[in-house]
Amino acid sequence: MPTRFIHNVFFWLKNPANAGEAKALEAGIRTLFDVSTVQDAHLGKPAPTDRSVIDNTYSYHLMLAFNNLDDQTAYQGDPIHLKFVDDYAHLWERVQVYDSDAGLVSDN
Amino acid sequence: MPTRFIHNVFFWLKNPANAGEAKALEAGIRTLFDVSTVQDAHLGKPAPTDRSVIDNTYSYHLMLAFNNLDDQTAYQGDPIHLKFVDDYAHLWERVQVYDSDAGLVSDN
Repeated sequence: MPTRFIHNVFFWLKNPANAGEAKALEAGIRTLFDVSTVQDAHLGKPAPTDRSVIDNTYSYHLMLAFNNLDDQTAYQGDPIHLKFVDDYAHLWERVQVYDSDAGLVSDN
Repeated sequence: MPTRFIHNVFFWLKNPANAGEAKALEAGIRTLFDVSTVQDAHLGKPAPTDRSVIDNTYSYHLMLAFNNLDDQTAYQGDPIHLKFVDDYAHLWERVQVYDSDAGLVSDN
């Protein structure tokens, strides 16, 4: 398995019932797929799974895969990402991020 | 973008300083990669990123990608998965799951 850095972001919309704001955030998130260091991208909504260990309260989940930490650091400073935050941060109430690096696990 | 179901699991070890238990859980998690409906898999540890929105307190992150909800449901009942829970659940203090389906987002 190749080394891989996965950046998971969960967004909670300020107004989840506002379809226009939801669509706007979807479109904004998709602009991030074009950042040059992004290797794989996924935009999802909570599945209808429901067990005690599952958090399904978020509005959107963005998964971005990078080759390594440096590529993710470059993404943070990329003009596309900075513009996304400037343009859309007012729509969310909360974001929760998990950065997970396969290169830190032995025997990969 | 193809429809994709991403099953994210974050594990907090009961004894994170116990290297033997950590290695055992790593090995156990890797057995899950062999479940037939798994399309992509990633095992990572918290990256050295540190912003207020980042949770880096977990021990391991498992990402499993499936083609759809049905394939993930099959995984839950797969003997490999059931054996993993039986054999390793005593090692973790907490798991947090996020199931995210790209098929639920319009215009995918």
